[in-house]
Amino acid sequence: MRAIDTSDSLVVTDVPEPEPAAGEVVIDVVAAGVNRADVMQRAGLYPPPPGASSILGLEVSGTVSATGDGVSAWSVGDPVCALLAGGGYAEKVAVPAEQLLPIPRGIDPVDAAGLPEVACTVMSNVVMTGRLSPGELFLTHGGTSGIGTHAIQLARAMGARVATTARNATKLAAAEELGAQILIDYTADDFADRVQAEGGADVILDIIGAKYLEKNVAALALNGRLVIIGMQGGVKAELNIGALMAKRGSVIGTTLRSRPTSGTADSKAAVITETVARTWPLIEAGTVKPVIDSTFPLADADAAHRRLNSGDAVGKVLLTL
Amino acid sequence: MRAIDTSDSLVVTDVPEPEPAAGEVVIDVVAAGVNRADVMQRAGLYPPPPGASSILGLEVSGTVSATGDGVSAWSVGDPVCALLAGGGYAEKVAVPAEQLLPIPRGIDPVDAAGLPEVACTVMSNVVMTGRLSPGELFLTHGGTSGIGTHAIQLARAMGARVATTARNATKLAAAEELGAQILIDYTADDFADRVQAEGGADVILDIIGAKYLEKNVAALALNGRLVIIGMQGGVKAELNIGALMAKRGSVIGTTLRSRPTSGTADSKAAVITETVARTWPLIEAGTVKPVIDSTFPLADADAAHRRLNSGDAVGKVLLTL
Repeated sequence: MRAIDTSDSLVVTDVPEPEPAAGEVVIDVVAAGVNRADVMQRAGLYPPPPGASSILGLEVSGTVSATGDGVSAWSVGDPVCALLAGGGYAEKVAVPAEQLLPIPRGIDPVDAAGLPEVACTVMSNVVMTGRLSPGELFLTHGGTSGIGTHAIQLARAMGARVATTARNATKLAAAEELGAQILIDYTADDFADRVQAEGGADVILDIIGAKYLEKNVAALALNGRLVIIGMQGGVKAELNIGALMAKRGSVIGTTLRSRPTSGTADSKAAVITETVARTWPLIEAGTVKPVIDSTFPLADADAAHRRLNSGDAVGKVLLTL
Repeated sequence: MRAIDTSDSLVVTDVPEPEPAAGEVVIDVVAAGVNRADVMQRAGLYPPPPGASSILGLEVSGTVSATGDGVSAWSVGDPVCALLAGGGYAEKVAVPAEQLLPIPRGIDPVDAAGLPEVACTVMSNVVMTGRLSPGELFLTHGGTSGIGTHAIQLARAMGARVATTARNATKLAAAEELGAQILIDYTADDFADRVQAEGGADVILDIIGAKYLEKNVAALALNGRLVIIGMQGGVKAELNIGALMAKRGSVIGTTLRSRPTSGTADSKAAVITETVARTWPLIEAGTVKPVIDSTFPLADADAAHRRLNSGDAVGKVLLTL
C-alpha cells in the first residue's frame, strides 16, 4: 500500500499492508489528521512510543476493512475514526479496537479525520484532568489551532467562560466566531494581567511550556489547574512554588499519545468512552463543529506540514488518501 | 486572660477575653499545638491571613465556654478540638463553629490539641487533593514531624505502601515503628533513586519546596501527584516540564491555613467533615495514634519553639494552659 514512512522528505513509498492482530481492526483510510507531533517526529524531536509504527500519523477516518480475533464491537464496513499511536499517513492502518470511535452522525467522513486528536485531547485534559466546571473561566492558548478551535467550542458548550490568546486580530476574530469571549493579542497585552482582571483562570490548556510557565501560574485563579500538553516554548523553567501555594494551584504535565490503550483511568479507551459519551452528542447537535483549515492529498504531505508550520491555519490540516 | 501575642520574646501578657461573634464558639483552652507556621510567623516570615488574630496558634483542645448566635451544633461544656486561623496560644479563643471537631473517644484532652492540624493537613492534601488509593506508594518527607507521624499511620491504614525520608537511623526507626516500610536516610541515599526502585511514588507530601522539586518529580510514578505544603527549602526552582509530561505528573501547591472557613470543596469545613468521617474512627479504634513529643506550659513557649526548631522532636510539641 502507499504510505509515508518516517523520513525527511515525506515521500510516498510502497510498504506491506498491515494485518489485524488479535483485538485489532484494520481501517481503510479516507483521511488522516496532521498534528504538530508529526512535524516534531519528522524532525527527530518526538520519537514514537515503543512498539508504535514508524509511519507518521496519529488519527484517521475511514471504514473498517478487517477485524482481528476477539473484536466484536466493530464490523467490516463500519465508518469510523481512530486515535493512533502512529501509522495514519497510509492507505491502511491497524489499530486496537478500543481506539476506534464512530463517525458522529452528520459529519463528513473526511472531516471526521480531524476529530479524534482534538476531541480526545480536550476531553482528557480540560475535562477529565482539568475538571473544568460550568461557570469557570477557561484559558486556551492558540485559539485557532486544531485543539484551540475545539477547546473553545467544548468549553462554551459546557457553560464555561472562555479566554484565548492569539497573535493577531484576524486569528482573534476567528476565535471569537467560535465562542471565545476574552480575546487576548499576546503580542500587545500581558495575558496574565488580562485574565486576572477577569478573576483568573480556573483551567489553562497550554502548549507552550517553559516560556509561559511563570505567566500561566500568574494567570491562575484560586484552585486553578494549569494543564501543559506541549513544550513549543521550551522544556525547563523556574517554578515559583510560593505563588503556586498562594493560589492552591496545580501544574499538570501530560500527553495523550504515551497513555496505555486500556486498563487505567487515563487510558486512551477511557478517554474515548468519555469523548463519545459527552462530546459526540454536541457534535451531532451542531453545537461543536469540526474546524477544517485545509485538505491536501497524501502526496502533498510536505505542503500540509508547511501549512501547519506557517501558523496561519485556523483549525485542522488533513491529508486525503 | 493570659495569652502570647505576636512578639519576638513569646512573653505571656494580659489581653481582653474574646467574645463569640455570630456563628462562633469560644473555647476554654486546655492545650495548643505548636506548628512550624508559628515559628515562621514569629520570625515575620508567615503573616497571618487578613482578619486572623495576631496571637499565635493554629490549633487547640478544650471545652466550649460560650456560643454565638446561630450556633446549634455545639453546647457549653462540649469537649472539642479546633483548627484556627490564629489565636491558640491563649486561655480562650473564638473560632467559627465549622472549625471545631469533637475530641475522638478515648483520646486525652491535652493530646487532642495535636490532632487538628496534622489530621486535617493529611486528609486534605494526601487524600482529598493527592487522591492516595489503596496499594499506591506514598512518600512523605520528614517522617518524624507531626505531619509525618500522622501521614505514615493514615496512609498505612488506607492500605498504601509508605516510604519516608529522615536524617538519621534513630528517626527512621521511629518512622518504622509507626508503619513506614521504605526508610530512606537522605544524608546517605538519593531518595528519588530509592523510591524509583520501588516503582515510583504515586503521592508525595512535601514540606521542602524548591530544594526537592527536581528530585520529587524524578521520584514520581506515572500519574504521580506531588503535593507541596511547605517551602523550608526555598521558594523558586527549575521545573522540568518534559519530565513532568513524561510521567503525566502533577505538582500541586497548597496551604490549609489560607482556605475559607466554608462554602468551597476545599474549605476548612469540608476538610473537617472528611477528617471526622474518615480519620476519627481510625483514631478511636487505635489504628492511628496521636504522637506527642513533648508538652510545655504556656510560659515556656520559647522552649517549645526551640524544641520544634531542634529537629529532634518525634511528633507534636504542645503547650498546656
